[in-house]
Amino acid sequence: MSTAGQVIRCKAAVAWEAGKPLSIEEVEVAPPQKQEVRIKILFTSLCHTDVYYWECKGYTPLFPRILGHEASGIVESVGEGVTDLQPGDHVLPIFTGECKKCRHCLSEETNNMCDLLRINCDRGVMLADGKTRFSINGKPIYHFVGTSTFSQYTVVHEGQVAKINPTAPLDKVCPISCGICTGFGATVNVAKPRKGQTVAIFGLGAVGLAAAEGARVCGASRIIAVDLNPRRFEEAKKFGITEFVNPKDYNKPVQEVIVEMTGGGVDRSVECTGSVQAMISAFECVHDGWGVCVLVGVPKIDDAFKTHPLNLLSERTLKGAFYGNYKPVSDIPNFVNKYMNKVMSFGICLDNSLPTIHHSVF
Amino acid sequence: MSTAGQVIRCKAAVAWEAGKPLSIEEVEVAPPQKQEVRIKILFTSLCHTDVYYWECKGYTPLFPRILGHEASGIVESVGEGVTDLQPGDHVLPIFTGECKKCRHCLSEETNNMCDLLRINCDRGVMLADGKTRFSINGKPIYHFVGTSTFSQYTVVHEGQVAKINPTAPLDKVCPISCGICTGFGATVNVAKPRKGQTVAIFGLGAVGLAAAEGARVCGASRIIAVDLNPRRFEEAKKFGITEFVNPKDYNKPVQEVIVEMTGGGVDRSVECTGSVQAMISAFECVHDGWGVCVLVGVPKIDDAFKTHPLNLLSERTLKGAFYGNYKPVSDIPNFVNKYMNKVMSFGICLDNSLPTIHHSVF
Ligand SMILES: NC(=O)c1ccc[n+]([C@@H]2O[C@H](COP(=O)([O-])OP(=O)(O)OC[C@H]3O[C@@H](n4cnc5c(N)ncnc54)[C@H](O)[C@@H]3O)[C@@H](O)[C@H]2O)c1
Ligand SMILES: NC(=O)c1ccc[n+]([C@@H]2O[C@H](COP(=O)([O-])OP(=O)(O)OC[C@H]3O[C@@H](n4cnc5c(N)ncnc54)[C@H](O)[C@@H]3O)[C@@H](O)[C@H]2O)c1
Ligand SMILES: [Zn+2]
Ligand SMILES: [Zn+2]
Ligand SMILES: [Zn+2]
Ligand SMILES: [Zn+2]
Repeated sequence: MSTAGQVIRCKAAVAWEAGKPLSIEEVEVAPPQKQEVRIKILFTSLCHTDVYYWECKGYTPLFPRILGHEASGIVESVGEGVTDLQPGDHVLPIFTGECKKCRHCLSEETNNMCDLLRINCDRGVMLADGKTRFSINGKPIYHFVGTSTFSQYTVVHEGQVAKINPTAPLDKVCPISCGICTGFGATVNVAKPRKGQTVAIFGLGAVGLAAAEGARVCGASRIIAVDLNPRRFEEAKKFGITEFVNPKDYNKPVQEVIVEMTGGGVDRSVECTGSVQAMISAFECVHDGWGVCVLVGVPKIDDAFKTHPLNLLSERTLKGAFYGNYKPVSDIPNFVNKYMNKVMSFGICLDNSLPTIHHSVF
Repeated sequence: MSTAGQVIRCKAAVAWEAGKPLSIEEVEVAPPQKQEVRIKILFTSLCHTDVYYWECKGYTPLFPRILGHEASGIVESVGEGVTDLQPGDHVLPIFTGECKKCRHCLSEETNNMCDLLRINCDRGVMLADGKTRFSINGKPIYHFVGTSTFSQYTVVHEGQVAKINPTAPLDKVCPISCGICTGFGATVNVAKPRKGQTVAIFGLGAVGLAAAEGARVCGASRIIAVDLNPRRFEEAKKFGITEFVNPKDYNKPVQEVIVEMTGGGVDRSVECTGSVQAMISAFECVHDGWGVCVLVGVPKIDDAFKTHPLNLLSERTLKGAFYGNYKPVSDIPNFVNKYMNKVMSFGICLDNSLPTIHHSVF
């Protein structure tokens, strides 16, 4: 019996308050409205950005809320006007979207910051009617970045849904929806190391490991990983990382350590920590003349990036990367195919050995 | 009678102390040593960087010194080992050099920060023997950035000499040796606006006007100039500038004014002021998703560039440009030819209407 058009009752992990444990509740999930799809979530994982908005330090609290944005699933039903997706499609919901019509989506310069559907952490409702699709006994439960994947069913705008190859294993491709693309793309699409160049990766969470994998695929000669947590080094050895640096082992700034190790600085660096101190170090450890530093981590609300302008004048480049510069709807299906064709090898990364938890919630 | 191998006595403007008026003195100019050339300076102009090191605020004073680095002249004689230059060659001495052998000079990524000959404002002597070629009654007078063009004759390392088309008018091409290349290249080689894009230029000195000219040549649809000095606007109207903004006319940060004027920010900005506040504004006024800000101004010694990292994460790019990213020896001869072929039109810029003083010193 089809559930299309019906309210679905299912389980979800609800965050009732900032920083308080999530609790598994039975929720009602309304049918998708115009331009929306309802997805049965099969796998979801935890990214630091979920933790960040669950802790909600310095932000206006928006609770009760269903978090989660790294996931894979199958379309259950589609709302009015949806033509590119249908029930049964295998999909990745993505925390940022693509309307294919705005200045950003149409920009000739690689761009994924859609005016309509770019990530919005402060909005807890759907665009179509300004309401939530989740409720418990009629009480609305807010959405998170339009995905809310910590639920067996969720409703997502069609512009935030990547339709993928149905033969792709949904458990393995799940982290492609956030961490892997974010890190891998930050290196491959934005930092763009040349073959033989040196790359520093700050932070060895899922994002940093994917960034390191990007450096390996680009043919980097040295991949220097920096993390404050030495336990991360053990896990990370399986990746192409050639050297590890723990800033705590030195009594000088880590950028100086790296400049000495490399005789002038690395060619590229990718920051995947969210610490503003690591952002500054990542920038100041790139070589003058040509070094490029890419920031990926989500900073705290009152952080300030600070450096002497001469560090820029000596021809270093500083840029940020959002979702690895991938267009969520247009690029991700192809990314998944490349993964299937083993052009990229996230084998280890996806075999449950990631530091972040990749598992089915229920 | 040839002066080669002889000490030449000539006039020079000597800075005896920081911030004190230069005085015209008779100086002795020793013959060029290994890898050096002696140049008869015919034209020289004043760039803000001269003023900066003359004021010498926060830097270790190095006086008496002969300043000057924007100039044109003719080779008088060459030292041992110089093969690419000979007496009579028309040349531009350049404040930064190219050894053609170091990692920077050989880098595949556009690069002009030569390990041996990059600008060095703190060194007052020649590399060959650590001594000066200038003296007054045997007392050494320090060099400035290896050029010291406020003298009728000067000695320069061959790697800091661009040999140019002998039919180029030396008075008109003189500012190509600094301000024009710095500003024009910052836009054309580094900011790289696409046809139809919007560009903001901060600062309307010689460098800023050349940056605006670069935007015009690239086909910018709007060129918005920002300066605190409204008198600069009159002069600048002759350039392709379409709008002027004086930050003093608003009671909000100028970046907000520009974001409003352009519905989201300019596509490119080029900062040519040396003010760290202008650097921050120039960065924060570029459009998210694709905006590129290029810093050119020389900051004060204790300045800090400060911005919220989210401004970067939303895919803005910040970079510095040094000498417009031109390689001084390899690229400038061709730049002068392009000027001769009217591909670029610095007609106005070079007809003495520049805000900075372009004149023969003597
Ligand atoms: N830009 C984007 O599109 C995007 C997308 C997803 C995640 N993110 C952000 O990327 C960052 C990484 O995410 P994750 O899930 O991999 O996080 P994570 O918490 O799993 O990993 C972060 C790692 O950084 C290390 N670290 C923290 N401070 C450090 C410092 N000062 N120096 C060196 N190492 C330090 C930690 O020890 C940890 O191992 C987070 O800030 C997250 O919010 C950004
Ligand atoms: N990167 C390089 O290779 C290079 C080479 C040459 C010169 N420079 C530097 O470029 C800068 C410009 O040189 P110039 O000779 O054209 O200088 P200039 O003094 O002739 O012009 C600077 C202009 O900036 C304006 N200005 C100052 N503060 C401002 C602010 N906060 N907002 C808006 N406008 C402001 C001034 O009114 C002035 O019109 C200087 O800092 C100089 O040292 C850099
Ligand atoms: Zn994430
Ligand atoms: Zn869009
Ligand atoms: Zn100059
Ligand atoms: Zn060199």
